[in-house]
Amino acid sequence: MEVGFLGLGIMGKAMATNLLRHGFRVTVWNRTIAKCQELVALGATVGDTPASVVAKCNYTIAMLSDPAAALSVVFDKNGVLEQIGNGKGYVDMSTVDAATSSKISEAVKQKGGAFLEAPVSGSKKPAEDGQLVILAAGDKALYDDMVPAFDVLGKKSFFLGEIGNGAKMKLVVNMIMGSMMNCFSEGLCLADKSGLNPQTLLDVLDLGAIANPMFKLKGPTMLQGSYNPAFPLKHQQKDMRLALALGDENAVAMPVSAAANEAFKKARSLGLGDMDFSAVHEVVKGAGGSGQA
Amino acid sequence: MEVGFLGLGIMGKAMATNLLRHGFRVTVWNRTIAKCQELVALGATVGDTPASVVAKCNYTIAMLSDPAAALSVVFDKNGVLEQIGNGKGYVDMSTVDAATSSKISEAVKQKGGAFLEAPVSGSKKPAEDGQLVILAAGDKALYDDMVPAFDVLGKKSFFLGEIGNGAKMKLVVNMIMGSMMNCFSEGLCLADKSGLNPQTLLDVLDLGAIANPMFKLKGPTMLQGSYNPAFPLKHQQKDMRLALALGDENAVAMPVSAAANEAFKKARSLGLGDMDFSAVHEVVKGAGGSGQA
Amino acid sequence: MEVGFLGLGIMGKAMATNLLRHGFRVTVWNRTIAKCQELVALGATVGDTPASVVAKCNYTIAMLSDPAAALSVVFDKNGVLEQIGNGKGYVDMSTVDAATSSKISEAVKQKGGAFLEAPVSGSKKPAEDGQLVILAAGDKALYDDMVPAFDVLGKKSFFLGEIGNGAKMKLVVNMIMGSMMNCFSEGLCLADKSGLNPQTLLDVLDLGAIANPMFKLKGPTMLQGSYNPAFPLKHQQKDMRLALALGDENAVAMPVSAAANEAFKKARSLGLGDMDFSAVHEVVKGAGGSGQA
Amino acid sequence: MEVGFLGLGIMGKAMATNLLRHGFRVTVWNRTIAKCQELVALGATVGDTPASVVAKCNYTIAMLSDPAAALSVVFDKNGVLEQIGNGKGYVDMSTVDAATSSKISEAVKQKGGAFLEAPVSGSKKPAEDGQLVILAAGDKALYDDMVPAFDVLGKKSFFLGEIGNGAKMKLVVNMIMGSMMNCFSEGLCLADKSGLNPQTLLDVLDLGAIANPMFKLKGPTMLQGSYNPAFPLKHQQKDMRLALALGDENAVAMPVSAAANEAFKKARSLGLGDMDFSAVHEVVKGAGGSGQA
Repeated sequence: MEVGFLGLGIMGKAMATNLLRHGFRVTVWNRTIAKCQELVALGATVGDTPASVVAKCNYTIAMLSDPAAALSVVFDKNGVLEQIGNGKGYVDMSTVDAATSSKISEAVKQKGGAFLEAPVSGSKKPAEDGQLVILAAGDKALYDDMVPAFDVLGKKSFFLGEIGNGAKMKLVVNMIMGSMMNCFSEGLCLADKSGLNPQTLLDVLDLGAIANPMFKLKGPTMLQGSYNPAFPLKHQQKDMRLALALGDENAVAMPVSAAANEAFKKARSLGLGDMDFSAVHEVVKGAGGSGQA
Repeated sequence: MEVGFLGLGIMGKAMATNLLRHGFRVTVWNRTIAKCQELVALGATVGDTPASVVAKCNYTIAMLSDPAAALSVVFDKNGVLEQIGNGKGYVDMSTVDAATSSKISEAVKQKGGAFLEAPVSGSKKPAEDGQLVILAAGDKALYDDMVPAFDVLGKKSFFLGEIGNGAKMKLVVNMIMGSMMNCFSEGLCLADKSGLNPQTLLDVLDLGAIANPMFKLKGPTMLQGSYNPAFPLKHQQKDMRLALALGDENAVAMPVSAAANEAFKKARSLGLGDMDFSAVHEVVKGAGGSGQA
Repeated sequence: MEVGFLGLGIMGKAMATNLLRHGFRVTVWNRTIAKCQELVALGATVGDTPASVVAKCNYTIAMLSDPAAALSVVFDKNGVLEQIGNGKGYVDMSTVDAATSSKISEAVKQKGGAFLEAPVSGSKKPAEDGQLVILAAGDKALYDDMVPAFDVLGKKSFFLGEIGNGAKMKLVVNMIMGSMMNCFSEGLCLADKSGLNPQTLLDVLDLGAIANPMFKLKGPTMLQGSYNPAFPLKHQQKDMRLALALGDENAVAMPVSAAANEAFKKARSLGLGDMDFSAVHEVVKGAGGSGQA
Repeated sequence: MEVGFLGLGIMGKAMATNLLRHGFRVTVWNRTIAKCQELVALGATVGDTPASVVAKCNYTIAMLSDPAAALSVVFDKNGVLEQIGNGKGYVDMSTVDAATSSKISEAVKQKGGAFLEAPVSGSKKPAEDGQLVILAAGDKALYDDMVPAFDVLGKKSFFLGEIGNGAKMKLVVNMIMGSMMNCFSEGLCLADKSGLNPQTLLDVLDLGAIANPMFKLKGPTMLQGSYNPAFPLKHQQKDMRLALALGDENAVAMPVSAAANEAFKKARSLGLGDMDFSAVHEVVKGAGGSGQA
């Protein structure tokens, strides 16, 4: 199978590499063309522009850093739109908002092409290991065509229906995750202030019905007060805000998530927005206070 | 090693059985004496009264249904207190409140005996499989003596320090669990009302950083609206209340847990107290309402 | 002083009447021209179009029903923009969002005119009695010119600075009001379920430090379960949403208001959006539930 | 009418003075007997002990500082119990918990006496001005007998039914007050961070439907960050805790009050417990943080 691949950042490079290793013929493009060399060494061909990649390949995957880049690659001169058309599919695996995704979808479909949004859950390591979770939505036939590629890139892919559902699913998952982080932090603080060893709480939790990778990974660093950003708090809070807004549109009251969202806002107000989202622990601990009753 | 065992309910019977199978000599007592027969078939001796068990064994374990039973076995005529004394240890593995545990501890120590509270995390199946998690507190020397028995009964035991810490640790764990249940339920409702398939959300969650046994076990039944009580909602709410009170004593503000507690109260007000704690899902869904915006 | 007046709905008619009674010369316009007759009987002149009113008067006040009407009167053919210019002031007293207000402001200023947003607090009765509270923002010189008219229309006017501040001030006030309504409702329910007479609670509250007109007005109807819409719940919830979003922009965590907002959302999900905002009482009471513990 | 009066602290002295000025014959007692002299100058008689006051008077009022003092005056040697009996009434106007009130009630009734709890709303100034609000419960006949005295002491008295209802009514009122304080503080912070003048917000609030004495009194000092304790925050939080517990007993979910309670706990954790309850404003402002987004 031949695929185009636009964007060779940390994620894109790992993904394109996996496709090559599994026998796909891949034509790559990256804004900084030098980044393509490593892939060429593995057998990739290089395209001059997004348009030329699409001209050559029936299926083109994009993995770009943000909505602006995702739009630019499609709408700018020498962009995807110039060559997309009947019989060609475009799959955007970047994480973008629903509006961006809809805009690209409309434009591609108007040219006669097929479009799939397919944001992923998982970061660098799962990308390298082909262990991403792929949340696809849009053109079902294109999804079916892409399954062999998705099988290489991820441990599992889902087809979620209409455009926008991929982004929505990510919001719901991140909302649960952000609220759970608050529950966890409150428990750690309660243990600590009540004379229990929080490290022992981590050990007990890890043996029980609510054991999960996040508690295991973040617990020890939270106890150290170390919040190296894997997922920045301000992005977590943005996702909670958008999830609550989605709830508002659909008249779903979510008081626990709303309380968690306010804690993240408080963390932002204390200047913790660029730290890891687990830094909400500083708010729960009572940042800046002496902690006496 | 010889141990006494008081209380052969669902949990106690499974635990005493495990001790016998691993070569412990066990003297059992149960209020309804007939329940002892099955254990006798496995090699157990029967004691007439709690006092006679303690008289015979240097170490006696109790696993009783509630604080009233735990107190009765110790303080009533022919109870533990009549024979406890120097060189003898008493280990109460029942789930009781801190006040009950302290009262028993004081009485045992005044007679010269050693006391350990050791509530467990896990129910019938883990008890049968010797996979309980044991949260012990009180007399450290007695804990050390009991390790061989705890190794048979549980996959892990912890010594948590002074009397009361076992109960506190359970409260903290249950508080996190109860709050997480609310986060989970809110996410399921948001998915559903936003046009996503909640079953797909379960699948996505199970592949990610917050995958945990509770979501996996309860998710499908919650989607069915089925709340067969494994852990009754009114007990979950009681634990949240006690955990929040513990936070109040120690000036720990826990707004997310407080919001979850109010949702459980609302569930009680709707008559769901005897159902499984996952029935809080009915409140989040909007029990009794037509659900239209 | 001569003023134009656009919009003779319930509010506008009362306001224009007050201006006439206090000796202002008033030229009125209304989309349904027949509504002007009553004002003519009191001495008003009628203008054919918004443009002709602005052409005739140096100061023109608008009081329209919603943002769409506010925009239409300015931007449509024969609208305000066609005649506004140097030396002329336009004062929009409608309740509109910040974006609408900014758009009108920009257009009026580009033509050389002066603009003031001046939303009011208070409904029909205060409008008739000249007891509105006027929250003005924009052109300070125009505000100073309008003081004689504002003195007739309201018991008090405020100049709040730049365009948008009038709308923001209303949001803050309405957020406090919506949260207070929830506090009040929770207290009424607690009294009722605890065996106290809620009517007596109303009497006690009315004698104390938190006595206020809203409790006095809404309490008795809430106890009857009567929610005739003075301020529809869906509008109250919209204002809470916008106020929380304003807090989000400025990193202000507001957990109590967020909890209140979720209660209003729950009320919407139960189909109460078109009732008075005090209908959130149904949510607190436990709508649809039997209320047993 | 002749009445005994036990306790001449700030409140008691003002109240006894009012009774004397309105022609009541009053026999006073105070632990520190010197405090009685001022009342003697106004016509009071002095009793040696609580028992001797009760012996002399058919009606005895107590106004003591706390539950310990309230119990001591009744149960200690030379206490009320020694002389109370058929035909005599005892009215405790101290603010005590329900358990204390019940204990005194039981003891008095067992001796054949009549008992009324009658806690008041209002502090020094209303006591001096005879403007207290009296929340009475217990013996209805005794209440009727006391009305002439209550008319002198307060602007209004209520008979609320069975013993405990006076304390409950105070809890409900204080819960609403504490939650409202949070709503108010959140609004002030939102105004401030959004570029509005918080002082102007106070002026706008004071003209509208939610204008109330508390906002008017506390607003200016909160803006100054001045929290001279009129009602200490730790007492406010205690009342919120007890009110939420009362809700828990009766299965009343109160998410807004629960959120407010957590803010007061956070304030305690920051060492603000002895300041005025309006010091929760420091928590909302982001105590200890730099406040930047």
